Amino acid sequence: MGPILCVGALTMDTIFRLERLPEQPGKVIPLDAVEVAEGMAAAQAATIVRLGGEAALWASAGDDGIGDRLVAQISEDGVDTSRVRRVAGARSGFSSILMDQTGSTIIVPRYAAAITSPPDAVPDLAGVAAVMADVRWPAAARLALAAAKAAGIPAILDADMAAADVLRDLVAEATHIVASESAARLITGADAPEAAAWRLADEYGVFVAVTAGAHGCWWTESGGIRHTPAPEVEAIDTLAAGDVFHAGFAVGLTEGWPMQRIIAFASAAAAIKCTRFGGRLGAPTRAEVEAFIAA
Amino acid sequence: MGPILCVGALTMDTIFRLERLPEQPGKVIPLDAVEVAEGMAAAQAATIVRLGGEAALWASAGDDGIGDRLVAQISEDGVDTSRVRRVAGARSGFSSILMDQTGSTIIVPRYAAAITSPPDAVPDLAGVAAVMADVRWPAAARLALAAAKAAGIPAILDADMAAADVLRDLVAEATHIVASESAARLITGADAPEAAAWRLADEYGVFVAVTAGAHGCWWTESGGIRHTPAPEVEAIDTLAAGDVFHAGFAVGLTEGWPMQRIIAFASAAAAIKCTRFGGRLGAPTRAEVEAFIAA
Repeated sequence: MGPILCVGALTMDTIFRLERLPEQPGKVIPLDAVEVAEGMAAAQAATIVRLGGEAALWASAGDDGIGDRLVAQISEDGVDTSRVRRVAGARSGFSSILMDQTGSTIIVPRYAAAITSPPDAVPDLAGVAAVMADVRWPAAARLALAAAKAAGIPAILDADMAAADVLRDLVAEATHIVASESAARLITGADAPEAAAWRLADEYGVFVAVTAGAHGCWWTESGGIRHTPAPEVEAIDTLAAGDVFHAGFAVGLTEGWPMQRIIAFASAAAAIKCTRFGGRLGAPTRAEVEAFIAA
Repeated sequence: MGPILCVGALTMDTIFRLERLPEQPGKVIPLDAVEVAEGMAAAQAATIVRLGGEAALWASAGDDGIGDRLVAQISEDGVDTSRVRRVAGARSGFSSILMDQTGSTIIVPRYAAAITSPPDAVPDLAGVAAVMADVRWPAAARLALAAAKAAGIPAILDADMAAADVLRDLVAEATHIVASESAARLITGADAPEAAAWRLADEYGVFVAVTAGAHGCWWTESGGIRHTPAPEVEAIDTLAAGDVFHAGFAVGLTEGWPMQRIIAFASAAAAIKCTRFGGRLGAPTRAEVEAFIAA
């Protein structure tokens, strides 16, 4: 089975763990700090590898030093980065994230618009098992999802918050919509995740899951909606938890598991991640997820 | 004339300019952002070059990717970095800085203690015009200041806040003490900068300047204390303003100017810096300082 091609964001996050978030000027000594290449698609790709799958990344970076480090770090984690686009003269995306011990964050992201200019062409999908796209590089996501559908492989959309027209454009291209609660609400106008899942399934006629963090996940099966609760954990860092869920989902889907097992696996992987500091660096291995589910 | 050898801090700062500092969790989109190799000694060295002088850096970094970028960036700015020590297995220092439009900051620094372990030996001072040390790598500062005194060249101490015993140890080695108001108060117990300057001059018998930001600078001459006011500017970023003052001081001193001109030059350079975003990247050229003084 070939790689899952993840399409979208690639940014350098510096995450500081603090006793508490600052509320006024001054110096704050962190309990811990890491610099980690992530962004949704990149975090998903690296986590797919950790979960025992195969992943490739189609993302866009500048041709600066940060871009070099982004590609090097994701490559070291076993992801095929040969499709990553480097934009001449552009700055790569980066952000600083201050996080308290309960996982509350202040996020200061710096993205240059040049990074997300439309791509020239969609990468060759020969041998690719599935495409999973986030909403941060819309023109590329649209091309890749459409090409996946045409190739008869899963076209998974990570529908997180973005402009409503971007979201509506992309959901129409997906064979599997895995949406955050807030994005599902924005697209459908329905407040409750269950109702939003209904409306998405009704309008687009494809598989839909709506994730609601600690409240679990609503997903469609045989014309109905099922709910899978999130495992109860003491969350200290929810950063990239959604990406870990998506990675688990894509791994299970391409391995042909029943949907109930896929959602349980993705939910457990995300729950474990929430107990560990460091954004996507806290993602579990497949063995850890299986042990967690068994326990 | 040879280079001024700057001894001490070298860290990677990521500075975000924000409309206002965050007071609660959430996402904050910055007005601007830069990643800049600085730290006191490194910022001083790079600014000396910009002010028309020659500079070398003796600092300590890890052998990680951040260390590579620190050395590369300071080298590109014209500083001789051949003396920079790389500590095997250690992480380089870095920090994230959130700054509002009036220059108020939240600073989150991450330094590894291994970086500031004592050096094996003091670098060869042959051809060096002066040594200027900050307080962030105390063992190296002590060696370098003592070697400078022995070699008959200026041994300038940038006495900024540090543990009181570190400060007392280092001021005893300097031929020129340029102290911040708060450090001068810590060493001497005197609240007012003028009184602290008196006590330092009295105890150590060397040239003393005490800087007090927008309140100007008190300095010793012919057994008396003089005050030079800070030029009035609209400050938007005071980060590294002290380093720019020190750089101007060292340039003037090694060029043999009268002290009044040195202090006026350093004060003007620091004032210009305060009007520009980006830490030490806002340091002026010599021509800019001279035009500012003439105007």
